[in-house]
Amino acid sequence: MTLYGGVEAGGTKVVCAVGSGAGDIVARRVIPTADPTSTLTGVVEFFADHPVAALGIGSFGPLDLDPASPTYGHITSTPKRGWGGTDVAGILGRGLGVPVALDTDVNAAAYGEALFGAARGLHNAVYLTVGTGIGGGAVVAGRPLRGLVHTEMGHLHVRRHPDDTYAGGCPFHGDCVEGLASGPSLAARLGRPAERAGPDAPALVARQAFYLAQLVAAVTYLLSPQRVVLGGGVLGLPGLLAAVRAETVNRLGKALPAFADDLDHYLVAPDLADRSGVLGALALAADLAPNI
Amino acid sequence: MTLYGGVEAGGTKVVCAVGSGAGDIVARRVIPTADPTSTLTGVVEFFADHPVAALGIGSFGPLDLDPASPTYGHITSTPKRGWGGTDVAGILGRGLGVPVALDTDVNAAAYGEALFGAARGLHNAVYLTVGTGIGGGAVVAGRPLRGLVHTEMGHLHVRRHPDDTYAGGCPFHGDCVEGLASGPSLAARLGRPAERAGPDAPALVARQAFYLAQLVAAVTYLLSPQRVVLGGGVLGLPGLLAAVRAETVNRLGKALPAFADDLDHYLVAPDLADRSGVLGALALAADLAPNI
Ligand SMILES: Nc1ncnc2c1ncn2[C@@H]1O[C@H](COP(=O)(O)OP(=O)(O)O)[C@@H](O)[C@H]1O
Ligand SMILES: Nc1ncnc2c1ncn2[C@@H]1O[C@H](COP(=O)(O)OP(=O)(O)O)[C@@H](O)[C@H]1O
Ligand SMILES: [Zn+2]
Ligand SMILES: [Zn+2]
Repeated sequence: MTLYGGVEAGGTKVVCAVGSGAGDIVARRVIPTADPTSTLTGVVEFFADHPVAALGIGSFGPLDLDPASPTYGHITSTPKRGWGGTDVAGILGRGLGVPVALDTDVNAAAYGEALFGAARGLHNAVYLTVGTGIGGGAVVAGRPLRGLVHTEMGHLHVRRHPDDTYAGGCPFHGDCVEGLASGPSLAARLGRPAERAGPDAPALVARQAFYLAQLVAAVTYLLSPQRVVLGGGVLGLPGLLAAVRAETVNRLGKALPAFADDLDHYLVAPDLADRSGVLGALALAADLAPNI
Repeated sequence: MTLYGGVEAGGTKVVCAVGSGAGDIVARRVIPTADPTSTLTGVVEFFADHPVAALGIGSFGPLDLDPASPTYGHITSTPKRGWGGTDVAGILGRGLGVPVALDTDVNAAAYGEALFGAARGLHNAVYLTVGTGIGGGAVVAGRPLRGLVHTEMGHLHVRRHPDDTYAGGCPFHGDCVEGLASGPSLAARLGRPAERAGPDAPALVARQAFYLAQLVAAVTYLLSPQRVVLGGGVLGLPGLLAAVRAETVNRLGKALPAFADDLDHYLVAPDLADRSGVLGALALAADLAPNI
């Protein structure tokens, strides 16, 4: 059995895994995200012990994904200290001596969920995560969505909740949906992390549903996926998924009965817990097989 | 040379064309949209005089595009009187006795512009039209975008302009972008069509730019196309395209330099005037060639 490598590079940790690309994992290591050199050296060392035929990477970004660009495979202008300009694809590809496929962390997660998880068997699916940031990836016609760059769904501008006076925490926009509804934006208003909201939780859930339903509705109008997978730490707020469903039905109204009539199947939790990204990355590597 | 047929079915007229599918038209007829029977009979008669090997249709909707559905090829719940439930694809396919490809009018236009027009040579492009309604179609990885249904970009909820007191004209949502920025919404506020705005035109342009830039930004965040083609009658307002560009740059901010740095090439007028849709429909027919 040919083995492939998957890497999910996140802001706090890098998950490395080895498998056949069929949704299995035979070896795994989690490396805390530190400076690029030591972090990526750790990744190369793991795969030195676990040889693979190709490597797939789902990385935080923004990324240069244009194969014709001189900085293809680099992380571009990230606010993450030290990582701007890092040639993730090049460093890992040279370090392992194997072909590399690179995509965003959220596209890898969307691909993982579409192949093996909550959107299994569907050709068109969107994965949204609401955690430290808000992001979204998409699979269209069975392939991760690419364009001029990559999606940046968290920067969608949504209508502000009438009771919300928080200016918003996005360094670029202030009050885009990430600025208004990410975990840190909740903590900034509360003075403590959202997982410790206690009696404030119901008010948080209502406001979050107002914002996140606008993101789900926008995704529906602009991409018409067969399913939306909604995950991330903030979905740990009790009742939030159900509240987002209810608010999405309200917002879509009768414009799109195909979605609104069956929202429990349209908007769902991830099935792969924290493995969506790394399994999608592994699958990206396995897709390289014809070129190996 | 094999000839194919293209049909663009719109709310006021149906354009029929014959060509090789390579962006040429050798015969053309425009039929006013009346009741379904007489309109579609007119289409069948045109193609009886101009035999084609396959037919592509870009139609107003909503459409059932699910090949597994018993109502595949039907217009579903349109507000257009008499057309709800019309089996457009079936009636034309049986009438002509040839294979039929069906998509939305806006996807056909996006495909036409991506193959032969303002987004020629690009694999990822979005076409937006601002006329009697607002709609958008997309080409992703070279193919018209499909999903659970089809895109309904005009129903995106945007932030309201602070000076705008109009409730909005969308029958489903009131103040979605179509409800706030379509031609009829301008006429409802003005008391006359927007082409006769006269001294009110600059205020219209500013407000339209505020709304349409939000649509362009949302498309950018959620689809990351290589180019957005913005057309429709309302773009006849002098200076509107430039104003939408400027407002889009503001809204994207520094989150996406790849777009904002070159907006004159990213956001452009259509190249095919009123032929985008019918040329895209012709190309959809030509794509059926391997199955004929
Ligand atoms: N049970 C919970 N309820 C609400 N917010 C939570 C919960 N658990 C974690 N969070 C928030 O989610 C964010 C972390 O999201 P997560 O998806 O786990 O990580 P990341 O986005 O960094 O990959 C933090 O802002 C945290 O406060
Ligand atoms: N020069 C113009 N300036 C502003 N609005 C215009 C202009 N020309 C047409 N319109 C408006 O555009 C709408 C028609 O759009 P069009 O794209 O031509 O047709 P449709 O959307 O029906 O296919 C009407 O609401 C009309 O008032
Ligand atoms: Zn933002
Ligand atoms: Zn609407």
